[in-house]
This record gives sequence, C-alpha cells and structure tokens, in this order.
Amino acid sequence: MRWQAWLAEQREAREQAGLQRVLRPRSAGDDVIDLAGNDYLGLSAHPDVRTAAAEAARVWGAGSGASRLVTGTTTLHGELEDELAAFTGREAALVLSTGYHANLSAVTALADRDCLIVSDAHVHASLIDAARLSRAAVEVVPHNDVDAVRTALAEAGARRAVVLTESVYSVLGDVAPVAELADVCAEHGALLLVDEAHGLGVAGTGGRGLVSELGEAPHVVMTATSSKSLGAMGGAVLGSAELVDHLINRARPFIFDTALAPAPTAGALAALRLVRRHPELPERVHRRTAQLAHRLGTPRSAGAVLSVPMPTPRGALAAQAEAHDAGVRVGCFRPPSVPDEVSRLRITSQAGLSDDAWAHAVEVLAGIVDRHQEEA
Amino acid sequence: MRWQAWLAEQREAREQAGLQRVLRPRSAGDDVIDLAGNDYLGLSAHPDVRTAAAEAARVWGAGSGASRLVTGTTTLHGELEDELAAFTGREAALVLSTGYHANLSAVTALADRDCLIVSDAHVHASLIDAARLSRAAVEVVPHNDVDAVRTALAEAGARRAVVLTESVYSVLGDVAPVAELADVCAEHGALLLVDEAHGLGVAGTGGRGLVSELGEAPHVVMTATSSKSLGAMGGAVLGSAELVDHLINRARPFIFDTALAPAPTAGALAALRLVRRHPELPERVHRRTAQLAHRLGTPRSAGAVLSVPMPTPRGALAAQAEAHDAGVRVGCFRPPSVPDEVSRLRITSQAGLSDDAWAHAVEVLAGIVDRHQEEA
Ligand SMILES: Cc1ncc(COP(=O)(O)O)c(C=O)c1O
Ligand SMILES: Cc1ncc(COP(=O)(O)O)c(C=O)c1O
Repeated sequence: MRWQAWLAEQREAREQAGLQRVLRPRSAGDDVIDLAGNDYLGLSAHPDVRTAAAEAARVWGAGSGASRLVTGTTTLHGELEDELAAFTGREAALVLSTGYHANLSAVTALADRDCLIVSDAHVHASLIDAARLSRAAVEVVPHNDVDAVRTALAEAGARRAVVLTESVYSVLGDVAPVAELADVCAEHGALLLVDEAHGLGVAGTGGRGLVSELGEAPHVVMTATSSKSLGAMGGAVLGSAELVDHLINRARPFIFDTALAPAPTAGALAALRLVRRHPELPERVHRRTAQLAHRLGTPRSAGAVLSVPMPTPRGALAAQAEAHDAGVRVGCFRPPSVPDEVSRLRITSQAGLSDDAWAHAVEVLAGIVDRHQEEA
Repeated sequence: MRWQAWLAEQREAREQAGLQRVLRPRSAGDDVIDLAGNDYLGLSAHPDVRTAAAEAARVWGAGSGASRLVTGTTTLHGELEDELAAFTGREAALVLSTGYHANLSAVTALADRDCLIVSDAHVHASLIDAARLSRAAVEVVPHNDVDAVRTALAEAGARRAVVLTESVYSVLGDVAPVAELADVCAEHGALLLVDEAHGLGVAGTGGRGLVSELGEAPHVVMTATSSKSLGAMGGAVLGSAELVDHLINRARPFIFDTALAPAPTAGALAALRLVRRHPELPERVHRRTAQLAHRLGTPRSAGAVLSVPMPTPRGALAAQAEAHDAGVRVGCFRPPSVPDEVSRLRITSQAGLSDDAWAHAVEVLAGIVDRHQEEA
C-alpha cells in the first residue's frame, strides 16, 4: 500500500546517503568513558542526586498523576522552581517535562500570527518547531549576527517581536553575544528568548548561565533543561512573574501534559544544590574543555561542547567507531542534525571523570582525530 | 513596553472571563481522595512500582544523559519497548519522553505538505499541535463521524492520508469507533493513528487497549503514555518495525530530546507487568466507573473518565471547591481545555482506593452534583 512503499523509499534514500540510524542500548555496568552525553558535571550519578531521585520515587511514587494544573503539581516542583529562579537571578520559573516542552511552551504562548520571530540560523530543533507552531512570521538571521537582528527588529514596526538564541550552542559549542542581543531587543521593545540548555551549570559565574549576567532584564526569557548539566530530566522557563503566569494559563505543552515525575524533579533539585555549593565543578569543565580544544586544534568553547569537523558522514562514523573500540564514546552528528551540513564529532568535557580517565580519553581522541584529518 | 502591556491585557481578559488559573502544590502527606488524576489503577504508588523506579535511579542515575540516538538509550528503554509491543500485540514500540512527544513525533515524521490529515474534532492538544507542525493539509471532521472520515479520504485522491483519533477520549471519556475507522482507512490506503493515552491499561481485553483488538493491522499507528494508567511518565509510539525505524531517523521530538529518565522508565515497566498479571485491576475500574456514572446520571464510559457538564465555568469551579472541602479532588475543565466550550467536572474512577474511600467519594460527589444541577 501507499504508506508501506513510502516508508521503504525513505529508508532506501537514507541508506544510500549513509544516514541510516540505529539505537544501541547501553547497560548499567558499561565502562566506556562517555564524552558524548551532556551530563557535563557528572551529577546524574552523584550519590546525592541518585539518592534524592530514589527517595522521591519512594515517597511520591513513580509519576505525578496529572497535569500540573490538575493535581500534578507537587511541592517538589515548587522547590525546584524557587531554587532555579534564585540561582539564575530570575523573578520566577516554571518547570515542564522536557527542555523541548519548555521551548515549545515559551514560544507558542508568546508569539502568534501578529508577531515577528527573529531566529538565529543555528537554534535547536525545539525552537524551530516552536516558531513554526506559533504561526508567527519567522525571519531567520545569520548565526550570531547582531546587526541582522537589529535590522529585522527595525523593520518589524509595531509588531510584537521575539528574538530566539541559545547561550552556548548545542552542536558547535560556540557562544551567543547575549548582552548585545539583550540591548538591541531592549531598544526595540522586543523580547529576547535565550535557550540555556547548554549554559546552565557550565557558563557564567558559578554556572549560573549567561542570562544571569544581564541583571534583572525583564524582557529576557530564559529556557533551560534539567537533562544536561543537572543530570536529570525536565525543562524550565524563567523570567518575570507575569510571564510565568501567562504560561500557566496559555502554554499548551504545559497545560495538556502530565507533570514531570517526582524522581527527575528531585534529582534536578539535588544537582542544582550541588552546583551552587561547588563552583569548582564548572571550573573543572572549563579547564578540561580548554585542554581538549588545544590538543585537537579546535576553537575553545565557553561551554563543555567541542565540535570537530569531519570530511564525510561515513568518516565521522568511522572515527566514532574507532574511539568506541578504544573505550571512549563521542557523539557523531550528521545531517540533518547539524546546522551547516558538515558532519562532525561532538565531544563534551566531563567534570565527573577522574584525572586518569580524562587524560586517557584525550590521548585516544587526539590520535584518531589527527589520523582522520590527515587522511582527508 | 509593548510586551508588558500585552501580558497585562491578556491577564485582564482571563480574569474578566473567570478563567485565570493558578497552581496549587500538593504535599506528599496529602490525604485528599484523588478522583482528578489519571493514575486509574493506583500504580504510581504501588510498592513494586515505587521500588522499581527508586532502584533505577540508584543503579542508573537520575538522568539518561543524552538523546536516545547518542548515548541515552539504556537496556531499560529496550525492555519497556519490547514488553509494551508484546502486551498490545504490535510489532515494535518506541519510547519517548512524554505522550505529547509521542504524538508530535508520530504525526510530524509521517505527514508532510503532500499529505492530508483527517482529524476528529475532539482530539487532544498534542495531536492538534502535531498536525499543525507537520504542514499537512488538515481536515477536521465531526466527532466520531465515520462517514465524514470516509468522505474526506475519498476526496484525498492520490495523497497519503492519516486519520487521527483517540481510543477513549480524554475529557469526555467516550470511545471512538476504532474498528470501523480501521476498516475505512484500510479501504482507502490511509494510516489510522489511535492515541491510547486513556485506553492503555483500562480499555480492551485485560487493559490492552482498543488497537490490540484489531489484530496485526500494520496500517494502524498507536500512541500511548506511561503517565496515566502506568502511573509513571513517558510516551510511546507502537506499530510496524518499519514505522519505528522511520521515527528513529526522522522524528525531531525524538531525535533532539534527551531520553526518558531511568526512574520513570523502570516505573512504567513495573506497572505494565502488574497490569499483565492483574486483569482484575481494569475490571475494578470498569465496575467503579459504571457505578459512579449511574449515581451521577451521566453516560457510562468504557474507560475511567466521567464528564459532568456544569452550567458555568464559575459553577464548575465552585463544585470542585466544595468537593475539595469534603476531602475529594476532582478535575474542573473550562475553556479552552474542553472540546465544546462546556465547562465540566472531570471525575476519574480509581482502582487503587479502598472500597470505603471509594464509597465515601461517590456519596460526596453525588450530593454536590445533584445540588448544582438543580440550581441551574
Ligand atoms: C539547545 C537545546 N535546547 C533544548 C533541548 C531539549 O532539551 P530536552 O532534552 O530536555 O528536551 C536540547 C537538547 O536536547 C538542546 O540542545
Ligand atoms: C489523549 C492524550 N494524549 C496525549 C497526552 C499527553 O500525554 P503526556 O501527559 O504523557 O504528555 C494526554 C494527556 O496528557 C492525553 O490526554
């Protein structure tokens, strides 16, 4: 039938292009050194975090049972919201099930047909989907180009406008000019939405993210996730109390979704408390990122993400496989998961590894990357 | 500034309409009888489920650390997928972070500009958002109207078409004519997507859902959530192996999202095993639903959801508050969370309550509903 033929055709095209993906389950005992994941501070497995998550499952049960608006809101959600807001210097926070839900919620509850969305060319899939879903007019501007944002806002006229950016970009690891963007938005009465998925816990003073450096800035909306440096799961939107009130009432991916489960909520809370007490964790990430960038000859990153271009999608896969055989897991990003069609290894620095494990991983990767880049 | 004025205006409009929502956190010790949530079988707090979730947090950590395609897939995800597929008689399953992600993923990976989506008028917000995001042409047909679906498919011509329905509807609690829809779709070479969020664990033989009654039916895509009868969190898409392979490669809310955390994954798995071993759980839900429907004078539901229309949004809120004062929590759905602009109480039957607690709740609610309906 029509659909079966279509699915087969799609698969054939992926195979031809060397882009067929498969899932490879890992087991709990797995002793590969992980430089692919986003648990940069190693907090998912920290005893305090494991214990808090396990205790929450015991005390509250495995699920929250309903939407946050019905009976799904627990005091755990409230605590996490208060502490996230305090840590990042925002007035209020709203916790959602995923970072994806956070971006969908913030953008669709704010932007509508009467709005202009000005989006950086490299923003995450969840922001692209959110912009499309909002029905707003969308203008994509070149990556990190503040002048292009200024021009777009000047042309927006009387329309409400929202500018979309990340703080530390997820795939390339580079940083947005957040302060300049905030100034330009303020001048034009626009909102700036900054996705701190890869900023929170890593960038800014003590891992508070880059938005926290702006001071109060009520025209800045921050989104974040508990699934990366906080080692758990869940999203958040942070900003003014009016913003959060608006989202509670209008954000469909918040209203019509079951509340985040107790274990990841409590896990994120425990992780956040560790970040607050241990500013040396983000510092260790920075030192390791700098060292690895130097060794691989790639630009330094203000976050934990290093991006190493590879000649071909298949070459990237081969390098990833060699690293895995040598006991080191790295990410391999190929189209359509890259903003610029260039396949690459994505390598994250990890504060949770011992010095020995880290040094070993650096040597392994430097060897593989050198060889592949010479061959190309 | 522009945005502040807009937010204030929006809030004012909500307040005028009596539609302003607030969050009310509950605490763990809370002894209100909960007939508002969707944990119909009481499994979130079942000792096996709590223990499984807590153990998973201890063994695996609080988070999965990355996308399922990077390093986020654990053997726990695989086990849950295998057992969900086996339980519902589908060939394969894919676990996602939420039921919302499952619907967004299934629809957007399948439907594109060249497709027609035929959507029941009462489907859930996540399916409406998914259809919009897909860019397909969308035709909304009257609720449970098989002839209208047939006509729409006949007019689709050579286009690929997907029909969207729920099995047990989330707000009204009524059931879709799933077998007839499956036949009509087969005749026209269309896919049928059935959201079993409120069917799994409750409807069909032993709680296997309504799709399982169709036999193999490779043209039927089932979506589900672990956040309701399975008492945990997470979504799933079930169907042919080709479908799952396609989603792994193409579904953006799967690819660009961190994998479901270990605790809710393990909690859902433990709950699924309990449902399989205890068919008396869905049976108890059905007996209680029938009894409550009879007592409240509302139509019986094939699921756990009863919907009691109220004269006004404020009247619905008042009835909910009275129930709460009498120790019983029920849902209150007002526009825009209802498919037909009618405010209502949403009351769910719960297999996890003792006979005494249940009988007490039934009496409390019958009194309040009678009084409010007489006054109207
Ligand atoms: C920049 C960015 N935003 C949002 C998300 C979504 O967060 P989550 O995985 O919690 O859904 C991710 C990663 O998954 C991301 O990299
Ligand atoms: C019919 C239906 N589909 C999907 C969902 C979304 O599921 P989840 O809460 O797991 O995101 C819900 C409820 O939240 C629902 O009622």
